[in-house]
Amino acid sequence: METASVYSGHCPARELLDRIANKWTALIIGILGHTDGPVRFGDLRRQINGISQKMLTQTLRDLERDGLVVRTVYPVIPPHVEYSLTPLGRTLEEPLKSLSGWAERHMNEVHAAQSAFDAKSA
Amino acid sequence: METASVYSGHCPARELLDRIANKWTALIIGILGHTDGPVRFGDLRRQINGISQKMLTQTLRDLERDGLVVRTVYPVIPPHVEYSLTPLGRTLEEPLKSLSGWAERHMNEVHAAQSAFDAKSA
Repeated sequence: METASVYSGHCPARELLDRIANKWTALIIGILGHTDGPVRFGDLRRQINGISQKMLTQTLRDLERDGLVVRTVYPVIPPHVEYSLTPLGRTLEEPLKSLSGWAERHMNEVHAAQSAFDAKSA
Repeated sequence: METASVYSGHCPARELLDRIANKWTALIIGILGHTDGPVRFGDLRRQINGISQKMLTQTLRDLERDGLVVRTVYPVIPPHVEYSLTPLGRTLEEPLKSLSGWAERHMNEVHAAQSAFDAKSA
């Protein structure tokens, strides 16, 4: 077996990195990690301003298939669907939280760099 | 001024998260952080198996504009261009390294989860 490497285009780790290094993954896992107990689809959608229903559905399905999120359906009318992190999903909470935190802490610094770059290129 | 939040669709932190939570960003910053001294374009391209010239050029330009990467052009023939991390770029090294490392460490576990999911859905 070859050593896992994200630098190899055909290693499964590369494809996995593509799915976890993603803003929607970071935002969904951020909410599920931060909330006590499971979260309903509609609550996720309300808390992630700007995500489409289709994107949320697809991302949750990928996360479930990857074993990071558990989906529980309660057979009531209308059906009630809840999501929570698996133990494996919990191990992704910290790395993704660092990325979101980084974006929030450094956005002004990055904005200043962009303005300087654009002024130089103009 | 509003508090920065990646959960707000119109906050600049959301757009920044979109650029940093990205496999190419993770791979490029991983190489620049790991290498002593600057790295040439061609070396980056060789080390990141599967990246196109266009994608590497565009991602490096975005990283430069965001103040994360410095591009140095030596006026020789043929021109010699080198990239290195800025101090701000260095602060992203650890969070992105955790993501790449997570993908490498957990790819087998994720693969098993996918097989179980697909068997259940079939």
